[in-house]
Amino acid sequence: MRAVLDCIPCIIRQGLNTARLATDDPKVQREILDRIMRELIGTPLTGTPGDHSNVAYRVVREVTGVEDPYYELKRKYNRIALELYPRLKELVVSSEDPLHTAVKLAAAGNVIDLGIGVQFDVEREVEEVLRTPFSVDHFQGFVEELERAERLIYIGDNAGEIVFDKVLIEEIRKEADCEVTFVVRGGPCINDALREDAEEVGMEEVARVIDTGSDGIGIPWADVSEEFKEEFLKADVRIAKGQGNFETLSERSDPIYFILKAKCEAVARELGVGYGEIVFKRHPAAPSRNSLSPPS
Amino acid sequence: MRAVLDCIPCIIRQGLNTARLATDDPKVQREILDRIMRELIGTPLTGTPGDHSNVAYRVVREVTGVEDPYYELKRKYNRIALELYPRLKELVVSSEDPLHTAVKLAAAGNVIDLGIGVQFDVEREVEEVLRTPFSVDHFQGFVEELERAERLIYIGDNAGEIVFDKVLIEEIRKEADCEVTFVVRGGPCINDALREDAEEVGMEEVARVIDTGSDGIGIPWADVSEEFKEEFLKADVRIAKGQGNFETLSERSDPIYFILKAKCEAVARELGVGYGEIVFKRHPAAPSRNSLSPPS
Repeated sequence: MRAVLDCIPCIIRQGLNTARLATDDPKVQREILDRIMRELIGTPLTGTPGDHSNVAYRVVREVTGVEDPYYELKRKYNRIALELYPRLKELVVSSEDPLHTAVKLAAAGNVIDLGIGVQFDVEREVEEVLRTPFSVDHFQGFVEELERAERLIYIGDNAGEIVFDKVLIEEIRKEADCEVTFVVRGGPCINDALREDAEEVGMEEVARVIDTGSDGIGIPWADVSEEFKEEFLKADVRIAKGQGNFETLSERSDPIYFILKAKCEAVARELGVGYGEIVFKRHPAAPSRNSLSPPS
Repeated sequence: MRAVLDCIPCIIRQGLNTARLATDDPKVQREILDRIMRELIGTPLTGTPGDHSNVAYRVVREVTGVEDPYYELKRKYNRIALELYPRLKELVVSSEDPLHTAVKLAAAGNVIDLGIGVQFDVEREVEEVLRTPFSVDHFQGFVEELERAERLIYIGDNAGEIVFDKVLIEEIRKEADCEVTFVVRGGPCINDALREDAEEVGMEEVARVIDTGSDGIGIPWADVSEEFKEEFLKADVRIAKGQGNFETLSERSDPIYFILKAKCEAVARELGVGYGEIVFKRHPAAPSRNSLSPPS
């Protein structure tokens, strides 16, 4: 999807949040805001939201010299999610449809803000997401495609969240005899998971881990590695988590299952759902097998 | 309170919202955003959040020539709230403590987004607010001060919301034999109530209506009229609704009862409450009569 005017104030806010992690000095934080505004003025919004957000993160790096402002937060997110892991497994095995529950948990991983840190609240939020229906739920088609799958690619999003992804991948491997590749970013990018995060949560136990070869948000196609592109193109089932992946992949014709919460109006509009809703959406939609009407 | 760095992205977002009401042309909307950013770069944050937000509204006026972009919305908000008026009165008279219910309704008027327009939802939201306790509730002290009051000043906020204020003023006048002055803005300022709005909802039936003499957000002391200042200073009970009034009056030593929802982190911090919470707060707090501990 293309960036919209709403992305401009949002990018500045993201820059401020990141500036505060990189430095405690309000003068430097202000300098960062001013430089981001200076770069945004007049810049045509031709790229994805992520392409334009990258400006904010680059400015923070340039001004403060801090390569990975989210480093400590990511350690914390992984720790909180790993503490939750036994409970997540329990929720899956005790449910009527473990695979569907695992998909819901993967969405919960995208919804909850591990930054709050109070484990009790996180558990309550997980249960809240389990009760919330997906606004778009292409689970049935997913199960059918999974049966025939030989190679599945799973593009991760945030640190911490990847523990929830691991739970889903474990269920996927029970259902299907397919190779699973898990994708992390190629370099520091907001609180997105890197190889270090995948190692921290033991992702290699359930999937081959590769990176995008880029530190850009989502999958900036012009900047990702040949290795990533090859894996992406040859997979027969693709899962991508979160807004950054959706924003950068929504215009591709290769079918992808997106699992995410619509955290801004622009993404909600693009997904055809309400703000704040969660989806498990195959895009493009599979052709309907039971009717002649176009897929919804 | 002083503006903070968080105000910068917020002002740009406010500018975009207002630009969209003033013009449908995305090129003009973009020009407005760029001009706002140009004005914000390097500007020291020495004023209140409102002082700095005024930049956004001025730029919209200058670029589009539209004096009051919220004009139609204000008509709509008044109409929706007036339709709700009989139900609000019913809620008050059927309650155990009509004055407290009327204060809660005044808060509901600040919470609900009349822009959504579906009356059923608005009613549900009103009931939701009635169930939500104030995070700070100085109602008891208010009742005591009201008993002795001769002159009460009530500074309004948004169009539509002022119908809820009228309900509270009606209850105040049942409890206390005092003159009530209701204050609107002196000129177009976001969706804030003007004299026309006060007329539309029949505010003159329950209060003398004056304006601030300024089209600035809240009460920009350097810019308000002598008439307003005199009324404000001689009142023995003061009520002010919403964030704009709080932001601009929070540093005054004259006691004021603020009724509002904390719609941003900076205001929540200043109020000492959580984001999204509602308060009925006397500021500065009244000296405690029952203990030697300092007032909370």
